[in-house]
Amino acid sequence: MPSISRRGETMPESPIRKLVPFAEAAIKRGIKIIHLNIGQPDIKTPKVALDAVKNNTLEVLAYSRTEGSESYREKIAAYYAKNNIHVNADNIIVTTGGSEALSFALGSIADNDDEIIIPEPFYANYNGFANASGIKVVPVVSNIENNFALPPIDEFEKLITPRTKAILICNPGNPTGYLYTREEIKKLAAIVKKHNLFLIADEVYREFIYEGREHYSILQEEGLEEHAIIIDSVSKRYSMCGARIGYLVSKNKEVIKTALKFAQARLSPPTYAQIASEAALDTPQSYFDDVKKEYEERRNILISELNKLDGVVVAQPQGAFYCIAQLPIDNADVFAQWLLEDFNLNGETVMVAPAAGFYATKGLGTDQIRIAYVLEKEDLKRAVHILKEALKVYAN
Amino acid sequence: MPSISRRGETMPESPIRKLVPFAEAAIKRGIKIIHLNIGQPDIKTPKVALDAVKNNTLEVLAYSRTEGSESYREKIAAYYAKNNIHVNADNIIVTTGGSEALSFALGSIADNDDEIIIPEPFYANYNGFANASGIKVVPVVSNIENNFALPPIDEFEKLITPRTKAILICNPGNPTGYLYTREEIKKLAAIVKKHNLFLIADEVYREFIYEGREHYSILQEEGLEEHAIIIDSVSKRYSMCGARIGYLVSKNKEVIKTALKFAQARLSPPTYAQIASEAALDTPQSYFDDVKKEYEERRNILISELNKLDGVVVAQPQGAFYCIAQLPIDNADVFAQWLLEDFNLNGETVMVAPAAGFYATKGLGTDQIRIAYVLEKEDLKRAVHILKEALKVYAN
Repeated sequence: MPSISRRGETMPESPIRKLVPFAEAAIKRGIKIIHLNIGQPDIKTPKVALDAVKNNTLEVLAYSRTEGSESYREKIAAYYAKNNIHVNADNIIVTTGGSEALSFALGSIADNDDEIIIPEPFYANYNGFANASGIKVVPVVSNIENNFALPPIDEFEKLITPRTKAILICNPGNPTGYLYTREEIKKLAAIVKKHNLFLIADEVYREFIYEGREHYSILQEEGLEEHAIIIDSVSKRYSMCGARIGYLVSKNKEVIKTALKFAQARLSPPTYAQIASEAALDTPQSYFDDVKKEYEERRNILISELNKLDGVVVAQPQGAFYCIAQLPIDNADVFAQWLLEDFNLNGETVMVAPAAGFYATKGLGTDQIRIAYVLEKEDLKRAVHILKEALKVYAN
Repeated sequence: MPSISRRGETMPESPIRKLVPFAEAAIKRGIKIIHLNIGQPDIKTPKVALDAVKNNTLEVLAYSRTEGSESYREKIAAYYAKNNIHVNADNIIVTTGGSEALSFALGSIADNDDEIIIPEPFYANYNGFANASGIKVVPVVSNIENNFALPPIDEFEKLITPRTKAILICNPGNPTGYLYTREEIKKLAAIVKKHNLFLIADEVYREFIYEGREHYSILQEEGLEEHAIIIDSVSKRYSMCGARIGYLVSKNKEVIKTALKFAQARLSPPTYAQIASEAALDTPQSYFDDVKKEYEERRNILISELNKLDGVVVAQPQGAFYCIAQLPIDNADVFAQWLLEDFNLNGETVMVAPAAGFYATKGLGTDQIRIAYVLEKEDLKRAVHILKEALKVYAN
């Protein structure tokens, strides 16, 4: 039997995947599961986007343009202008989800055995894309005690080698909810300029910022134009994760020219999804105001409820819709499985994402979980109550 | 300024891309272009597929299942059974186009600097996917004189090294239209078993076979189960290239388990496109009969018209909707550009794909072009007439 590749062997599994059979078994036993584990919003997709697809009159579902249509990219540029990010259509490649944008970015700037520095904990799939391209993820640790702020710059400098090609951040962060300040972005800008690296920022949660704070994009930072690559996506912004539309944005012409060659190989992004995504740009501001208000309320309830639990430390997220909670347990993998296998409160339990999968450093995050607050407030309250009771039982 | 990667530099450009500015300029001058260069069918997408999307009632465009829904994969398995390919839902991963299926397959079985043997000429984007993954394409030459039949097996054996992981074929072939016989598949099966390699077959044109011949899939070959990986796609079958839905199919459990990890990293294939693609499986047989009849007629006209041209050698395609024609010219790149820049017949010209981009061996195919017969018969006739007149002018 022919053997699979080493990169295939080392491809990480989703941190949640191994829990799925236990969740399915629990459901079969009649247990109701409250899902704190996934970032699939329950928020309705804007009607204008759904209607555009329902009312389409295509007779041949043809390839679209490799980089996305001119009209769509013009409209995306106008969206960025409203967000104080000044780019034009030529700086944008429409991709199949933010995932593909990241794959193209990594492939365009790094070769096999090259290195990318990422503050950890980070979105687990960064590991997957790096591994698929043979790129080494070099983590720099951020701490829950410090709310997952940017690690000191000399921690980055210690890790830079001749093989380092980029620093990758997620802002605001999945799984931390941390929002980088303007000063932190300026520090990162200085270090990538000094060492001639790229700065890749996954800004897919740009719209979800709380407490009246403001998002500062890497493309707002003057002088960073040749270094900055933005990864973006419609998935969370318009609650259309299933569209699979994202963008790669850079003012560096070589990056765009190179990424376009990767894009050509896969021909084009999905046509229906682009119809929905282009229409979604006409979503009224009231939709976002409502969604943001809803997420902020959910966040406030979740964090205040979690803070009431003995021995639980929770970081205060300023953006996105995740938080990391540190629990008074040894091993969150075991605990998450136990919640599904052996625990229920009046026929209900919770499913959480063990946080170790969001760290590259072995042994970190083992007592932490990631919670996504994409559920109704009442469900979130009940979920934290279940967690509280579960922790009591688990302690014995 | 930070530099792009070597793999970025070596990513091949689409063979047609560099002609696009010349085509755009021709259109601006009022020239009408008959496109022989792209495999975008003009055939209508089945109504059942288009209607399924128009009538969808989704309120949240959510992620779908990473490997495609159970119901969709069950239906795909039933489709294969009708085509004498016996697989079950667990052998199938739904991907974003055949492109992604090939990326996952290559990543799952080969590492950086590993080698894949491919009979050339081959679908140009194979180069792109291999390059993105750091995999070396090792071509084995098939000849127009021999109608692009399978090269002798000892030509393959000469090329096998400890780094060889697979043989990749396209059956029936893009760009050759060649249909491998049962005996040729058996020869390939013997060699991959002897050397413990994978056999990857891109079978996206399975339905388009002419002269009453039959397609013999690598998964019909007994004893090849652990070696065989099929790349498939809805793009051409249902004229829905813009859906971006394909499948990776293998009975090798390690391959599926590994490819699934690549799939998890990108979360899910596009949701709307899956709605269309699942519905497309209910397309009545009459649709395929009509489409196949139409393509066969187009092929017959194209080939007989081309055969009338002095100094033109054309391979007889038995499947797909492409053919390679050898022209009495030195350099098809220059000729293709000249057709757009300097030639027209009563305000019309043709755009062709220079064939050198379909070869990995430098210097091969320079006097060949690929023609896609996805146009109305009258247009094809006129296109060959234009080509004939153009060749006369070009000779002087």
